[in-house]
Amino acid sequence: MLLKDLGEDHIVKQLACRLGQKHPRLIKGIGDDTSVTVQRTGRALLSTTDTLIEGVHFSLSYAPARLIGRKSLSISVSDIAAMGGVPLFGLVSIAMPGRTEKRFLDELYKGLQDVARSSKLVIVGGNTARFEGAVIVSTTVIGEAPGKMIVYRSGARPGDIIYVTGTLGDSALGLRVLQERGIGALKSRLKKAVIRHLDPQPRLAAGVGLSTARLASAMIDVSDGLLLDLKRLCEASAVSAVVELSRVPVSRTLEDYCGKEGLDGAQFSLSGGEDYELLFTSPPSAAKAIERLSKRLKLNMTPIGKIAQPTKKGSRLRVLDKDGASLKITRIGFEHF
Amino acid sequence: MLLKDLGEDHIVKQLACRLGQKHPRLIKGIGDDTSVTVQRTGRALLSTTDTLIEGVHFSLSYAPARLIGRKSLSISVSDIAAMGGVPLFGLVSIAMPGRTEKRFLDELYKGLQDVARSSKLVIVGGNTARFEGAVIVSTTVIGEAPGKMIVYRSGARPGDIIYVTGTLGDSALGLRVLQERGIGALKSRLKKAVIRHLDPQPRLAAGVGLSTARLASAMIDVSDGLLLDLKRLCEASAVSAVVELSRVPVSRTLEDYCGKEGLDGAQFSLSGGEDYELLFTSPPSAAKAIERLSKRLKLNMTPIGKIAQPTKKGSRLRVLDKDGASLKITRIGFEHF
Repeated sequence: MLLKDLGEDHIVKQLACRLGQKHPRLIKGIGDDTSVTVQRTGRALLSTTDTLIEGVHFSLSYAPARLIGRKSLSISVSDIAAMGGVPLFGLVSIAMPGRTEKRFLDELYKGLQDVARSSKLVIVGGNTARFEGAVIVSTTVIGEAPGKMIVYRSGARPGDIIYVTGTLGDSALGLRVLQERGIGALKSRLKKAVIRHLDPQPRLAAGVGLSTARLASAMIDVSDGLLLDLKRLCEASAVSAVVELSRVPVSRTLEDYCGKEGLDGAQFSLSGGEDYELLFTSPPSAAKAIERLSKRLKLNMTPIGKIAQPTKKGSRLRVLDKDGASLKITRIGFEHF
Repeated sequence: MLLKDLGEDHIVKQLACRLGQKHPRLIKGIGDDTSVTVQRTGRALLSTTDTLIEGVHFSLSYAPARLIGRKSLSISVSDIAAMGGVPLFGLVSIAMPGRTEKRFLDELYKGLQDVARSSKLVIVGGNTARFEGAVIVSTTVIGEAPGKMIVYRSGARPGDIIYVTGTLGDSALGLRVLQERGIGALKSRLKKAVIRHLDPQPRLAAGVGLSTARLASAMIDVSDGLLLDLKRLCEASAVSAVVELSRVPVSRTLEDYCGKEGLDGAQFSLSGGEDYELLFTSPPSAAKAIERLSKRLKLNMTPIGKIAQPTKKGSRLRVLDKDGASLKITRIGFEHF
């Protein structure tokens, strides 16, 4: 069955049926002009939007529909995590060619539903359009956090330690392998990296843990590469940063691959985007508490450098090699234009 | 200057600069991982999302960038109006080719800003992506309304009068003229219809007026054509409807055009989409109050038919001609798939 043989109303009804789960804050979900949900005083509302486009952000030659659905929602949830908030509601706009198999859409919905369930959000709105040029998924996620707990990009102070969760560079490695080998990469030795690219895990528990205990002075998720996102954090905070390359956490998978292929791991770990780890800063006094949180969540939180005074020209980013010499930074991350 | 020669961060900063107006409910707008805004207990949150795609919803051969910006936000604001709510926040995802002139984006922003200002909402989030296949604008609008005032699609009862604001069919006529004559249509005799297609006006004041005075039992905006949207309202309310064709309000422009070209005006007024008028139902006892509201807002609210009991097979839609005979309905509106 192709999508062009179904009606839009039929598709939206299916969407409502599949995604219309219950939520304590939901009054009316998909099926009216807008969704209707409950506001709660004392918590700030968080909202963010993202778009994944076939041929730009993914290729149908290697990305299964279910994982496209998962990733499209996960990356918006990751933004909520980076504020220290929890997601509540999601809205999804889907455009795809009329020749698309209904099964593809079903799988995409399943992926959305996976993340909705694991993130405890409910999908409250959506629309579909027929577009012959590409599969496009736009997501908006609305969340909340107690106002005083929210962690902005702008709170980093000289002397703060820079941390990152998990490992960096795996997603970029996964993308490389997918581009080389197609979907078969999912069965290769490098499967872990591939999955990190196709199915990133938003660090919700870490974000909430850090914000609730007021451990982070500034936070951002690593979507476009460590250096570019650190630059954004530094500019928002009007500070500089020094990163020690040897401390930047990388996976065994990435290390082995780079060793074998004679590649520089730093190009993955410093500039590779889409890891969706949390990059945050904390005063040195919080170090012990961060260690405890890290253990409790079974998620590494690695100190990778320090926040410094800004220069006269503004924020400056330095990366030191193992001898303490500054690396020359040529390409700091991924930008769309 | 082309977009590919600017950086994404530069574009987002410009977005923040241009769109970052003040709003009493805004804590942090564009420039962090998410926006941060104030929740207010006692009012329900409304949210809705839409996408406009070049080649599907508009053509660059006739749609000026500023009006693409205006329309993309207006159609989501119209959904808020159809619930009887007021818009608060907007989020915008834009994808466009790298060869796009910066001026095009500037104009598109101006259009977004026009509607943000006139609708008293603030744009709190956005992202941009380079996509060579089409210009795409996805919008999410978040609004609110006192919970008890919200007008759903599902409240229509047998005996209720069916009303519509303004006139219907102009937008479809405008589209036809644009497709025939290109952008020159904006200077033709049919300019009014063309503008209604390119720059629809969300009926915010009417929506709020009807909901606050509790005059409407059910409401929807006419985005996909009178009959299709009435069908949606009837199905949500589990009722049938009878529309008198001679009462359906059409503009002098449409009447003249159809007379001259020997066309049936009903194909525009019944099935033409994108008028973004409000279609609502009210008990007969509200008639006088609706007349007063209509006069106060200087916006026609025309009774066009009546809600009836559902049939055994469910909702049924009938359109009567001037002799009271049922018209055969062949194509009831616009669906995407």
